[in-house]
Amino acid sequence: MDIRCTAGGHRAVSRGGTMGQPTQGGNTLVDPQRLWDRHMALAAIGGLPNGGVDRQALTLAEAEARIRLIEWGGEIGLAPEVDCIGNLFLRYPGRDAAAAPVVIGSHIDTQPTGGRFDGVFGVLSGLEALHGLRASGWEPERSVDLVAWNNEEGCRFPPTTMGSSVFSGALPVAEALDTVDGQGVSVADALQAVADNVGSLPTRPLGFSVHAFLEAHIEQGPVLEARKCPLGVVTGVQGLRWYRIDVRGQSAHAGTTPESLRRDALVAAHRMLATLRVHFLGGSDHEDTRFTVGRFQVQPGVPNTIPGHVHFTIDFRHPDAERLGELGDAVASICREHAGPCEVTVEAEPASPPIQFAPSIVALLDRAARAEGVEPLQLMSGATHDAKWLSTVAPAGMLFIPCKDGISHNEAESAEPAHLEIGARVLQRALRELAA
Amino acid sequence: MDIRCTAGGHRAVSRGGTMGQPTQGGNTLVDPQRLWDRHMALAAIGGLPNGGVDRQALTLAEAEARIRLIEWGGEIGLAPEVDCIGNLFLRYPGRDAAAAPVVIGSHIDTQPTGGRFDGVFGVLSGLEALHGLRASGWEPERSVDLVAWNNEEGCRFPPTTMGSSVFSGALPVAEALDTVDGQGVSVADALQAVADNVGSLPTRPLGFSVHAFLEAHIEQGPVLEARKCPLGVVTGVQGLRWYRIDVRGQSAHAGTTPESLRRDALVAAHRMLATLRVHFLGGSDHEDTRFTVGRFQVQPGVPNTIPGHVHFTIDFRHPDAERLGELGDAVASICREHAGPCEVTVEAEPASPPIQFAPSIVALLDRAARAEGVEPLQLMSGATHDAKWLSTVAPAGMLFIPCKDGISHNEAESAEPAHLEIGARVLQRALRELAA
Repeated sequence: MDIRCTAGGHRAVSRGGTMGQPTQGGNTLVDPQRLWDRHMALAAIGGLPNGGVDRQALTLAEAEARIRLIEWGGEIGLAPEVDCIGNLFLRYPGRDAAAAPVVIGSHIDTQPTGGRFDGVFGVLSGLEALHGLRASGWEPERSVDLVAWNNEEGCRFPPTTMGSSVFSGALPVAEALDTVDGQGVSVADALQAVADNVGSLPTRPLGFSVHAFLEAHIEQGPVLEARKCPLGVVTGVQGLRWYRIDVRGQSAHAGTTPESLRRDALVAAHRMLATLRVHFLGGSDHEDTRFTVGRFQVQPGVPNTIPGHVHFTIDFRHPDAERLGELGDAVASICREHAGPCEVTVEAEPASPPIQFAPSIVALLDRAARAEGVEPLQLMSGATHDAKWLSTVAPAGMLFIPCKDGISHNEAESAEPAHLEIGARVLQRALRELAA
Repeated sequence: MDIRCTAGGHRAVSRGGTMGQPTQGGNTLVDPQRLWDRHMALAAIGGLPNGGVDRQALTLAEAEARIRLIEWGGEIGLAPEVDCIGNLFLRYPGRDAAAAPVVIGSHIDTQPTGGRFDGVFGVLSGLEALHGLRASGWEPERSVDLVAWNNEEGCRFPPTTMGSSVFSGALPVAEALDTVDGQGVSVADALQAVADNVGSLPTRPLGFSVHAFLEAHIEQGPVLEARKCPLGVVTGVQGLRWYRIDVRGQSAHAGTTPESLRRDALVAAHRMLATLRVHFLGGSDHEDTRFTVGRFQVQPGVPNTIPGHVHFTIDFRHPDAERLGELGDAVASICREHAGPCEVTVEAEPASPPIQFAPSIVALLDRAARAEGVEPLQLMSGATHDAKWLSTVAPAGMLFIPCKDGISHNEAESAEPAHLEIGARVLQRALRELAA
C-alpha cells in the first residue's frame, strides 16, 4: 500500500498489514477487514439493486441497523442508551464516570438512493477504533460515547441534522417530535415504532456535557481525490445561503409571437444567471466560493410554447461570514435588474453562518495523521454535518477520507478500504489522546 | 362598433346590425348572434371548469361535436361524408356536380386544455357563411365542401395536422391509421368508435381534386391585437426546424465541489443558449425570426446538487428558406463549441420548409376584406395549419382574426364576437367569388 499526497511527497501508510489481518502501526490497532465487512453488512440493510442503500431515518430498515450496531457494540461491552430525540449512544466506560465523555460518531440513516459510506463510515470507524482499543485493554480516564445521531439526512423528516441540532439546543425538541413525514407520521410516532422493534433501551438526558466531539466522514467532494491525498483534516464548515427565485412572464405560441412582444421567463432567468455567475465567481476568492443553481424548472415546458414561468434555486456557500453576507445580499437586486418584461420574486432562507472548528482539535487531528504517516490536507467542509452543531457546545473536529469521483448521495458512492483504514487509525489515535 | 386598424385609419365595419339581428352589408349575410351561440354550444362539448375545452381528436366528446355539426349542416341541406382518415365534409351542392369543389373549414379537435376558438372558428365561420348564402338562395357553379379536418392538434395521436397531411399525400394513410395513443388505441380503432357513435355516413375517396381552399382561424399570436387590426390576410406559413439537445455533465454535491472541478450541465447549457440567441436574433431579420427554447429540463433538479443533465429544445421559424437553412445548420456546432467539460448531442427533426400561399388567393382575400370595410394586415403564419398541406394540392389561403393577448392552446383563449363576424363576412365574400 503506497498512498501519496501531492501536498507532501509520499509516505508508507500501512505498516505491513494486509486485508484480514489486524495491523499494528505505532500504537494503533485496527482490523481493516472487519471494518470493511461491517460496512458491507450495514449496506445490506436497506440495500438497493444497484449497490446503494435506502435506509431513511426511523424506518424499519434503520431500526434493523440500530440492532446490528448495538450487537456489535455488545461484543466489546459497549452499553446502549438513547435520548428523547432518538440519538443512540454506545458507551465505553472511563475510570472517571463523572467526567464529560469524548463523543465520536456520525449517522446511519441514508438518502432514499444513498450510498454505503455517507455517515456509516463515521460510526463504524469509531466502533473499530474502540474495538481495537478494547482488545489492547485500554482504560481511559474519560468515558467514550460512540454515537449515531438520529436523522442526519432529513429526507423523511426535515430538517437535516435533526438529532444533533436538538442535542445542541438549536432546534426545540417539541418541534422536532411534531414533524411529520409525507404520510403524516410524526417523528414521535416513528421513534415509538423504532423502539418497538429495537426493544427498550436505557434513556439518557438530552444535551449532556461533552468533552470533545470527533466525526470521521467521506469527503463527498472531489478535492482529496484530485490532490491524491488520503486524508483531510476539516477546519470548519462553510456558511450557506439559499434562495428561491420565481420569474413570471407570459406563455405564448412560439411561432406567432415576435421577439419584441415576448415575456419569456426563461430568457429573463438566463439573463439573471449570467450576471449572478459573474457576481459570485468573478472575484479573487472564486476558488472558495460555491455557487450552484441546482433546481431550474421551466413551465409549461412545451417545445412550441414560450416559457411563462421559471423557478430556480441558488445554493451559495463561502467560508467567510462577511463575504457570505455581501455577495448574498445582492441576489435580489441582480434578479430585479435583469427581469426585463417579467416579474421576479426572490425568497431567502435564513443564512447558516460559517463554523470554525476548535484549533486545538484541528491541531490534534493533524498531529495524529502525521503520526500515522499521512500528510493531511486541511480543508473546509462544503457539506453540513452533525459536527457543525456539536461545535457549538464542545470542541469538535472532523476527518475526511476521499470518495470516488467525489460522488455522494448516490448509489454509486464508493470509498477505498485503505482509506477507511487510515481514517479509523487517525481517529483512534486522536481519541486515545482526548480520553486519556 | 368601431374597429380601427393602425395600418389604414379606421372605418366602420358593421353596418347597423346588432347582436341577434342578421346584418346585411353589401352582399354579405351573416348572423353574428348565431355564429357566437354556436361557438358557445360547441365549447360546452368537452367543456372545462375554467371555460376551456378538452375535445381531443377521435374521443367521444369530439364525436358528439361531429354529430352537432352534421345537425347544423342538415338545417341548410348540407350532406355529410367522411374519408378514410376521418375528415368530415358537409357539401353545399353546385350546379356543376363534376367541377372540383371549393373547400372551406378548419378543425374541431382541441388541445387537452384548449380554448373555444382555435379551429372551431374556421369551421363555424364557414358554416355561417353557407347559412347566409343558403338563405339568400345562392346557387354556385361549383360545390362547396365545409370540412372539419381530423386531428389537427395531434395531442392524442401525433403528428399534428394528421387529416390534412394524409389528404394531401404528405403522410401515408396506413402509417396514420396505425398510430396509437398513450393507451395503445390505434387511429383505426378510434375512427371505428367515432363511427359507432356518429352513425354510418357516406364515404368519399381520399384526396379528391380541390379548386381552392380557404381557412379562417384565430391568429394565436399578438400582432393583430397590438396593431389594433381586426383582420389578417395570411401570406404563408413560416418554415420550422426543431432540435433536441442533451447536455451531460456530472451531478455532484453543491457544497463540496470547487468550480474548477465541476461539470455542470446547466452552466454549459446556458453558455450555449447565450450564443444561440445572438446567432439567431442578432441579424437584421430578427423581427422575422422566431427562436424559442420551450422545454428546458434540469436533472436531478435538487437545490444542493450540481445538475448532471440538461435536455432542451429549440423551435426555430423563419419565412425565408435560405435563412432557415443557414441559421439552423449552425446549432450543432455552437452547442459543441460551448459544451466545456460536458458532452452534448444535438438531434434535428426534418425541417418543414416555408410555404407561400397562392398570390391569387391572397389578393382575393385582401379585396374581400376591403369590400367589407376593413384594411387587413398581411402577415405570415407562425403556427402550422391545415392550409399549409392544402396549399400543396390547390390554391389555398387563410384569414386571421385577433385573439386576446395572443393566447391560444390555453383555456383563457378568447376572441371578440365582432371579429368572428368580420372573419365570417370576408370568408363568405371570397367564397362567393371562388365558387360562382
